[in-house]
Amino acid sequence: MPLGEFELIASYFSRPVRRAVLGGGDDCALIAPTAGMQLAVTSDMLVEGRHFLSTVSPDSLGHKALAVNLSDLAACGARPLAFTLALSLPRASEAFLGPFAQGLYALADLHDVELVGGDTTAGPLTICITAFGEVEPGQALRRDGARVGDELWVSHPAGGGLGDARLALEVFRDRIRLSSDDFALARRAMERPSPRVALGRALRGIARSAIDLSDGLVGDLGHILERSNVGARLNLAALPRSTMLAAQDPGLQRLCLLHGGDDYELLFSAPPARCEAVGRAAAEAGVAVTRIGEIESMPGLRLVESDGAVTAPSSTTGFDHFRDGLGES
Amino acid sequence: MPLGEFELIASYFSRPVRRAVLGGGDDCALIAPTAGMQLAVTSDMLVEGRHFLSTVSPDSLGHKALAVNLSDLAACGARPLAFTLALSLPRASEAFLGPFAQGLYALADLHDVELVGGDTTAGPLTICITAFGEVEPGQALRRDGARVGDELWVSHPAGGGLGDARLALEVFRDRIRLSSDDFALARRAMERPSPRVALGRALRGIARSAIDLSDGLVGDLGHILERSNVGARLNLAALPRSTMLAAQDPGLQRLCLLHGGDDYELLFSAPPARCEAVGRAAAEAGVAVTRIGEIESMPGLRLVESDGAVTAPSSTTGFDHFRDGLGES
Repeated sequence: MPLGEFELIASYFSRPVRRAVLGGGDDCALIAPTAGMQLAVTSDMLVEGRHFLSTVSPDSLGHKALAVNLSDLAACGARPLAFTLALSLPRASEAFLGPFAQGLYALADLHDVELVGGDTTAGPLTICITAFGEVEPGQALRRDGARVGDELWVSHPAGGGLGDARLALEVFRDRIRLSSDDFALARRAMERPSPRVALGRALRGIARSAIDLSDGLVGDLGHILERSNVGARLNLAALPRSTMLAAQDPGLQRLCLLHGGDDYELLFSAPPARCEAVGRAAAEAGVAVTRIGEIESMPGLRLVESDGAVTAPSSTTGFDHFRDGLGES
Repeated sequence: MPLGEFELIASYFSRPVRRAVLGGGDDCALIAPTAGMQLAVTSDMLVEGRHFLSTVSPDSLGHKALAVNLSDLAACGARPLAFTLALSLPRASEAFLGPFAQGLYALADLHDVELVGGDTTAGPLTICITAFGEVEPGQALRRDGARVGDELWVSHPAGGGLGDARLALEVFRDRIRLSSDDFALARRAMERPSPRVALGRALRGIARSAIDLSDGLVGDLGHILERSNVGARLNLAALPRSTMLAAQDPGLQRLCLLHGGDDYELLFSAPPARCEAVGRAAAEAGVAVTRIGEIESMPGLRLVESDGAVTAPSSTTGFDHFRDGLGES
C-alpha cells in the first residue's frame, strides 16, 4: 500500500526552515524579505520526455529541477532565498523520492536557499519549482537593457563551452556516438548544470542586459535583441566549446553551439569600457567568460563565419518544447 | 502546425502588469513588497483526473486553479499580490487557452492580483500556480494557534453549506442522481469555488487558528489539532448544509460534510469572547459563518451525533489525491 500524500510530504520534504518565518505544513509559507529589496520570482515546469529523459537518475533530476530556476535568478542578478516544490509522480516511490530529495537539497544547501512549501500529488511525472530571490531596486539584470556598442559575453566552464548538453541529447537520440568518457562528460553537462548565481550577482552594475541560456544561444539572444530593440553580430569562431565538441562534425558543432538548449550559462552584454570589470566579476565568481560578439543598431542577428563571411542563422527560434520534445526526432 | 511556445505565452498570458516592477517575459518577475510586510507563498498543482475532470470547462478550470491558491492565502489572512502560472498542456489549443485565460483573469481581477510570469510546455494537462500575498508580521493566521476553549467556526455561502462539491463528484461517479437544477448548483460549488480572501483578512487578530477546507473537514481539522497539540468536538447537527444536501441519505450527507473535499471554505478557531467580533468580520466580508464545535484538551476528534451520542470519525485522514483520485472509485 502506498504511503499517503501527507506522510509522503512529511518524510522527504519537511526539513525545518532556518531563515523563513514559517515553512511547509501550513497553508502558506511566510518569508520576511529584507526591507527595501525587490523580490525576483521565477517558475519552471519540467515534464518527463520533454525536459528530461526517463533515464535520468532521480538525484540528477532533483538537482536540475532546482538548477534551472536558480539559473533564472542568476540571470536577474538576484540572491536566491527560497523555493516551493510542486511534484506530480505516478506513485509514492521511496526509490525515487530519496535520491530526488538528496539531489535537490544538495544544490539548495550550496546556494543557501530553502524549500519552504509546495504540493505533492499523483499523476504523470512533472516537477514545478517556483524560486524567489531578492535584488536591490534598479539593480536587476534584465533582457531589455542592451545598447548599441555593447559587447556580448557568455559564461562557460573553464576549458569547456556551450553545446555539450545538446551533444548528450544527440547520443540519447542515437544520432551520434561518443566514447564512454566523453558521453559521461556530455551527460553531466546535460543533467547537472551549474547555475551561475555568483556571476549574476557580480555582474550587477556592470552588465546592461542578461539572460540565461536554456533554449539555445540564437533563440535566447533573440529575446535580448527583441526586448532591447537592437541587433547583434556573433563571431562563430569565438564561441567557447569543449575539446569534445570541437572534435565533432562542423554542422553538429554549429547545431550544438547555436541551438543547443540546456546550457544554463549566462549570456550578457556590457559596454566595452567595462571589459575589465567583466573579467574581475568572472574571476570573483570562479567561472570563465568569453566575448562572442557585439550589439548593433541594425535589427536581426548576423553570424560571422570563420572565413569572415556574414550569414543569417538558419533558425531564429530557440528550443521549443512544443516542437522539440526530447523524445521526438 | 501548432503555435510555438513563445507565441503561445505571448498571446494569452502577457497582459501588462500594473503593480509589479517587471512582469512576464524576462527571466524573473520583479515584485516590490510593502516594506515591513511578510510574504505569504503557496503553490498548488492540479492534475487532470485527480483534481479536475476532463469534462470541466476551460473557463472554470482557469477560475479554480487560481481559486485554490487564493484560498490558501485567505487561510493565512494574507492580501493577494501576484501569482505565477506554469502550464503543461497536450497541445497549444486556442479553444482551451482563450476561455482558460478568461476564467483565470476574471478571478484575478476580482481580487486585484497580477499574473507576473510562469512557464508553458507540452505535456499532460497540469496546472501549477504559485501565489504570493503579504501580511503584517505576527498577524498571519496559522494552523498551530488553536487553544483549549476556542470555538470552531466554518464559513459557507449564505443559505448553503459544506459538501456540495462532493455531491457533484458523486454524480460524476454515477453513484447518485440529482435534478438538473440541483446538479448545476452542486457542479458550480465544485468548479467555481469562491476563495474567502476578505474573511481571512477580517479575521486577523480575531481567529487563533485557521485552515482552508480542501481535503475535507475531518482531515483539515486534523491538521489544526495536530499542529496545535489539542483535540476537538464537532456538533454534527450544526454543520451547515444546503437544502439540496439536507435532502440526501444521512450516510451521504455525513460523507459530504465530513470528508467531502474541495469546499474551499475557511475553518477557524476563536476564543468565545470574540464571538461577536467573528460575526462582524463575517458580515464585513459578506460571507456566512457557523459555529460547529470547540477545541478541547483531550487529543483526537469527537463527533456529537444528533441524538447526543459521541462517536469517533470513521476516517481521520482527508481526501488523499494518491488514494482518492477523482477518476477512481
